Amino acid sequence: MRPLKNRKRVVIVGMGFGGLNAARELAGSNLEVLCLDRQNYHLFQPLLYQVATATLDQESITYPLRALTHNWDNVEFIKTEVNGVDLKTRAVQTTEGPLAYDYLIVAAGSATNFFGNDSVQQHAFDLKKLSDAVGLRNHILSAFEQADKTEDEAERRALMTFVIVGGGPTGVEFAGALAELTHGVLIKDYPHLPVHETRIVLVEGQPHLLSPYPTPLQKYARKRIEKLGVEVRLGAMVSGAQADKVFLKDGSEINARTLFWSAGVQAAPLAATMDVPKARAGRILVEANLTLKEHPETYVIGDLAHLEVEGKSLPMLAQVAIQGGKYAAHSILACEAREEIAPFDYFDKGTMAVIGRGAAVAVSSGLQFKGFLAWLMWLGIHIMFLIGARNRLATLIGWAFDYIFYNRQVRLITDDDF
Amino acid sequence: MRPLKNRKRVVIVGMGFGGLNAARELAGSNLEVLCLDRQNYHLFQPLLYQVATATLDQESITYPLRALTHNWDNVEFIKTEVNGVDLKTRAVQTTEGPLAYDYLIVAAGSATNFFGNDSVQQHAFDLKKLSDAVGLRNHILSAFEQADKTEDEAERRALMTFVIVGGGPTGVEFAGALAELTHGVLIKDYPHLPVHETRIVLVEGQPHLLSPYPTPLQKYARKRIEKLGVEVRLGAMVSGAQADKVFLKDGSEINARTLFWSAGVQAAPLAATMDVPKARAGRILVEANLTLKEHPETYVIGDLAHLEVEGKSLPMLAQVAIQGGKYAAHSILACEAREEIAPFDYFDKGTMAVIGRGAAVAVSSGLQFKGFLAWLMWLGIHIMFLIGARNRLATLIGWAFDYIFYNRQVRLITDDDF
Repeated sequence: MRPLKNRKRVVIVGMGFGGLNAARELAGSNLEVLCLDRQNYHLFQPLLYQVATATLDQESITYPLRALTHNWDNVEFIKTEVNGVDLKTRAVQTTEGPLAYDYLIVAAGSATNFFGNDSVQQHAFDLKKLSDAVGLRNHILSAFEQADKTEDEAERRALMTFVIVGGGPTGVEFAGALAELTHGVLIKDYPHLPVHETRIVLVEGQPHLLSPYPTPLQKYARKRIEKLGVEVRLGAMVSGAQADKVFLKDGSEINARTLFWSAGVQAAPLAATMDVPKARAGRILVEANLTLKEHPETYVIGDLAHLEVEGKSLPMLAQVAIQGGKYAAHSILACEAREEIAPFDYFDKGTMAVIGRGAAVAVSSGLQFKGFLAWLMWLGIHIMFLIGARNRLATLIGWAFDYIFYNRQVRLITDDDF
Repeated sequence: MRPLKNRKRVVIVGMGFGGLNAARELAGSNLEVLCLDRQNYHLFQPLLYQVATATLDQESITYPLRALTHNWDNVEFIKTEVNGVDLKTRAVQTTEGPLAYDYLIVAAGSATNFFGNDSVQQHAFDLKKLSDAVGLRNHILSAFEQADKTEDEAERRALMTFVIVGGGPTGVEFAGALAELTHGVLIKDYPHLPVHETRIVLVEGQPHLLSPYPTPLQKYARKRIEKLGVEVRLGAMVSGAQADKVFLKDGSEINARTLFWSAGVQAAPLAATMDVPKARAGRILVEANLTLKEHPETYVIGDLAHLEVEGKSLPMLAQVAIQGGKYAAHSILACEAREEIAPFDYFDKGTMAVIGRGAAVAVSSGLQFKGFLAWLMWLGIHIMFLIGARNRLATLIGWAFDYIFYNRQVRLITDDDF
């Protein structure tokens, strides 16, 4: 499969934030760049929860990879799945056979971590793939359709109870968006259903939400999310699940037909196939220049890489992946030019989480923001980072309709099986 | 399930163009109106081919039914499947049990007619449901991904050959949109693939395309579609198919991995469950006021109804369904007011078909239009008939990007199994 040409080849595994930015930086160079992904589109993962809660259409948070690569003469996309890497012979194993490389950038991202809890893994929804979000949207809307029909009071309550595990940004954002979907939109859709009785329970093991944030923002987030009708259970943990029930560690249980899990992240399965030193959550230990210790031609970036800076491992955030991708590309170009490059220096631009309409929290350059201002920052930054003018326009339209008319038009059940 | 209230109840089966317009006209009346559909959205079927060819996102041609019904106090939506009608006891059979009615409007639409050809039915794609369009898009894009990888010349050619059966509006519109997708967009996406060799074969049994149109427009359509690179085979018929081959009646065969069938339409399966007189293609014979002969409280409208006017049966077109739905509603209201109403009088506003960028044909009020003017008419009318400002905006954006930038951004393979 594709013999090496005269020029050197860079293979990039995974076209998330890290891989995409590496490819962009290598475009126009004299290297052959092969971009591999199992999907033919880049996915803007931070907005998956908005697809799951019927605010955005699935097309707005995706971008066809060939629409990017066809602009660059030296960059090519191959839709394939990578099952392993042979570091010694310098080849990645794909579904279509081995693919040789001179430089490798592994940017395969992360997977949900259920910490070995099979019953939770079997019954919980998570948000990693586009199909996860569409499936969750179909499930949520179908739950209300079923609730509208059932005569069984207990079943109705379970259908209208949603347990969200994990009080990090994903859990908080999803809980807020779900609360606004039910109390703002679905309450009008189902005149015979007591939609105001919908229970959204946010379960977090720590004594506060949004763990890495400063205490005032954590408190603000809790106040706002509770105002939206979300029950916050701090210091609580889920121990197991069945189709209509969630079990907590303290022995209590919640009758719920929907369990959403955002309480753990781990390295993508590709990491497990690689015989290299690992850190917590299966992440691959990298040197200060993001390469593998004994393989300076192999970069590991983004969620997959574990690098400690001042005693703390770099977080699994889009910004770390973006900067890592750019760094790896620059490092390869420097190597080709026989130049030296300083170690990877992550610049923390800050983090933010949205709670609901006009309510968000943000930390940047040591400053704290909350409320409407933080929400406007969040909107602007997310529109800016979406790829393509059509996606920006379509997303703006979706948000405008949601904000002005409380109209989430994408409340479609698109699975024929429901 | 839902006992009859004091006021009379109208049950509408199917929320296509016919059912939707009937519901709209009955909104605000003193009748209880129950709208039944197996999907929770109205589908703008005439634009399905644009979803299949990656121009429009699936959300733009759909509208959540509850977003309509929640505006009307006396109208309610029930997501359910109707399996039969008991005309004597006046009840429809749904998956959730029987539902009594005083008036019934059957607007279940049509299904593809494969004329009993099992091999074609097994291997052909058609366009009736939203999932058909998304599945066809995934299939077309995957064919090019596979073609890009295969070393087998014959397989590559078969992957890049598309046989479209039926030279009516759907076949012509799909062929034109597919030709523009391949020759305008995919040709840039696959630098190593001879995309210009893509074959799109349009097979039509009649000696001309667009059967009901005047000869000059038929000739124009043929010229334009051939200019787009579509091979037109008139007077030809498909006799069978297998996964990689299409057999023609004249004994020839075409190696193709995609077969699209738009050569036949028949009444939706619900018609077969009803013991009433039928006409050709299983359509239900109705009186001049769109009711069943022995059941004046039961209306059958749209594609499902067969009514001869001046020796010709009303065509299976959106306009017939829209006007039929309005008529049925007005007739029911007249009946309640003990007034007389004239028989259904279909007003032919005209028909149109788009061939490609800036090229369409239209017939209206005895006038013929073709080319850019007809295309502008087509754009305007389709934008007008889409439901909801968001859909109109999103569709305009999709078309603008396609027209200005030759950019079909929705070229996503969203099925994880591909």
